[in-house]
Amino acid sequence: MKDYLPEGSPAPSRRQFIRLGAMLTAASRLDVNAFAQEAHPTPSRSMINTPFAATKTPRIGFIGVGGRGTSLLGWFLAQNAQVVAICDVVQAKAEHAGQMTVKAGQKAPQLYTQGPHDYEALTARNDLDLVVIATPWDWHTPMALSAMENGKHAAVEVPLAYTMEDLWHLVETSESTRRHCIMLEECCYGYNETLVLNLVRHGVLGQLLYGEAAYLHDLREEMFSSQGEGLWRRAFHTQSNGNLYPTHGLGPVANYMSINRGDRFDYMVSMSTPALGLAAYRAGHVPKGDPKWSENYTTGDMNTSLIKTASGLAITLKFDTSNAHPYDRINMVGGTKGVFADYPPRIYIDGQPGKEAWNSIDEYKKDYESPLWAQKGEMARTSGGHGGMDFIMIYRLLQCLREGLAPDMDVYDGAAWSAPGPMSKMSLELGSAPVKFPDFTRGLWNKRSGSSI
Amino acid sequence: MKDYLPEGSPAPSRRQFIRLGAMLTAASRLDVNAFAQEAHPTPSRSMINTPFAATKTPRIGFIGVGGRGTSLLGWFLAQNAQVVAICDVVQAKAEHAGQMTVKAGQKAPQLYTQGPHDYEALTARNDLDLVVIATPWDWHTPMALSAMENGKHAAVEVPLAYTMEDLWHLVETSESTRRHCIMLEECCYGYNETLVLNLVRHGVLGQLLYGEAAYLHDLREEMFSSQGEGLWRRAFHTQSNGNLYPTHGLGPVANYMSINRGDRFDYMVSMSTPALGLAAYRAGHVPKGDPKWSENYTTGDMNTSLIKTASGLAITLKFDTSNAHPYDRINMVGGTKGVFADYPPRIYIDGQPGKEAWNSIDEYKKDYESPLWAQKGEMARTSGGHGGMDFIMIYRLLQCLREGLAPDMDVYDGAAWSAPGPMSKMSLELGSAPVKFPDFTRGLWNKRSGSSI
Repeated sequence: MKDYLPEGSPAPSRRQFIRLGAMLTAASRLDVNAFAQEAHPTPSRSMINTPFAATKTPRIGFIGVGGRGTSLLGWFLAQNAQVVAICDVVQAKAEHAGQMTVKAGQKAPQLYTQGPHDYEALTARNDLDLVVIATPWDWHTPMALSAMENGKHAAVEVPLAYTMEDLWHLVETSESTRRHCIMLEECCYGYNETLVLNLVRHGVLGQLLYGEAAYLHDLREEMFSSQGEGLWRRAFHTQSNGNLYPTHGLGPVANYMSINRGDRFDYMVSMSTPALGLAAYRAGHVPKGDPKWSENYTTGDMNTSLIKTASGLAITLKFDTSNAHPYDRINMVGGTKGVFADYPPRIYIDGQPGKEAWNSIDEYKKDYESPLWAQKGEMARTSGGHGGMDFIMIYRLLQCLREGLAPDMDVYDGAAWSAPGPMSKMSLELGSAPVKFPDFTRGLWNKRSGSSI
Repeated sequence: MKDYLPEGSPAPSRRQFIRLGAMLTAASRLDVNAFAQEAHPTPSRSMINTPFAATKTPRIGFIGVGGRGTSLLGWFLAQNAQVVAICDVVQAKAEHAGQMTVKAGQKAPQLYTQGPHDYEALTARNDLDLVVIATPWDWHTPMALSAMENGKHAAVEVPLAYTMEDLWHLVETSESTRRHCIMLEECCYGYNETLVLNLVRHGVLGQLLYGEAAYLHDLREEMFSSQGEGLWRRAFHTQSNGNLYPTHGLGPVANYMSINRGDRFDYMVSMSTPALGLAAYRAGHVPKGDPKWSENYTTGDMNTSLIKTASGLAITLKFDTSNAHPYDRINMVGGTKGVFADYPPRIYIDGQPGKEAWNSIDEYKKDYESPLWAQKGEMARTSGGHGGMDFIMIYRLLQCLREGLAPDMDVYDGAAWSAPGPMSKMSLELGSAPVKFPDFTRGLWNKRSGSSI
């Protein structure tokens, strides 16, 4: 079309691209993650493939027994884990958890209820193998560090942390203490997620190309409640912009793509909409004069990020907890032979009968259902907890402890899956500029094969 | 979490962000679009809101009567447009189109079949009001320019063009010749698209926040065919990386968001997967030794872009014609009160019965169906053409010509909706860096109200 180049309108010249590219490359060297990478040399020993010491009867301590912590306690008790200590800032919650433990036929656990730092007395005990942490987000890092520094493995609710320095600190502490820091990403154990992981393993979708992950969950009522997460979660929407909760959708897709097991997250960009949903909800539900009216919500309602992997795959990652939307983690993965998407679960394989139409996954269940679900599915489904995925997750964690296996999800997974939180914030501050992921594994991401789930 | 800052790991400091931000701002000033903007001063007269001269019996010329052009001819004939000239490089196709015209009771049109530049003889006629262009992509710009420079309005297939300089040339030629350059984006006239446009107009979805648009269409068989688009379309997949076909999904979402009518596209980022689909198809379908085996496919199979509007809304835009996938334009738009998504069409409104579940749009049809479909729907559905959207588009185009109205879609719309093609390529060359949209309207984007569809 050069014949039609308008006068005075220079075509995009290679030189301009190269100049712009060079400036961006220079800029990316300023990337805080690149700085952080240089500050984090390869450790003498990685935690990759590090097995637990086989422990027939793992002794567990709980920090945080609110809604989520109490549910977790139930699944541990149902699988005969020994619960020896429980900590909560609310005495009644700790006592209720203690009674649950006794009802399960165990000796009354020691309770720690003497304020926000009493968890340090729990982690200092000499009779704990694992500390389960289910507290508000800003307590995950200090509590997990305290557990590991005191020689206990840590199992932490999502996200692992929400700053890059906290993620690095958890990685290096896990390495130096030789204790695992496991992020409890139950969605990796969902029925569909484990089935799709098998479809990918067996090449049913061909060579992978793209994935999509999300946390679209209308939490407005919960966030404005005067109990539970309403006490703290809404505050994070006044502190920054970005994806506050990336791991539920991203963990399973990362497993499909063998992230930290042959591939790794390379860089990402992020974009947010305005923040309107929480203020609109407040206008309709909160009486004037309530202190909530002094809050200024700054987290864009819908955040969308694009993540590129080292082998070139692309992931779309969405977050929205502030608007009316049916619950959806999207959970999509596509390759050269077909594509799976969830909500509802559906699959399309090249050349299948009914061209151009999604099919049910039912016909794949016989051949690709996860052995975890084949063996424990009935118990899991009756246990409550997101259709059973929580039960399966705890089953696998206890199995790895009892049999002395490496955990399915190590500190490198928790760090990689949580990193889009702070990195989306960085990209947004830079007008959606690309931000490079650090390599938490320090080069070992391609030294092991796929997920052990 | 500063207590836990690891030694030697500097926190991301404001200064680092500011330095990086400053370099990116400097970089964005190098943006080829910014250059182009300076080279395109405000015209003495814009084409915004410029009506056609009322023409009772519009006289139409056709350039390109292959598959798509022949269909377009049929819809024009069905609505009594006068077809006086037809051009195609293939004599038999021109003659077939001529016979269709005669069968419709019209005088035999003049045929132009003397090679690839005979269209210049057609556009030079003095008895044409509108030239319809349905040719391979690389001919859209020269043919539309020729039509306008010869005093005819141009109606061009999608995309309008695939370089920024061609888009600018079409905009400035439309302005200087006072002739419209209309991109024939039929998807803007779909039943669901026009209904959703009404839902948005009436505030059913609240204040808009985000949208998603796509062209996911498995065209592998067509692209490897030895006729029709197989003769040229596949070649574009050997020439660049990016979104080759952005307008089918983006046009309707742009109308929901009043793009060029109160808002505008501000900047975008883009990411592609590897290009594997066409080579895999070739391996399974093309005999060794076929010349197609010398082709190197460079267009990433799945391209995903994020577009930010001046008022802060965010659009996700996808493109994939090289893999097995059910047809999908996504066609999603969400706001503070609810969200609509297509394939299948479904809606969720805040507080509706059946919390957390998508509803059918049926109950909205009575109040929000477009008058175009209420009046012409039956005729449109029986006319063929993407469920009738083509018929409705041609009906509206002829109505605007006959009644002397401004067209629903002007050169600024065609340029804005086509721009993500070349801009996705630029962003990819820069490692997914943000690229700024030019303002084809030169500041008039917020000087008129919403779509006239």
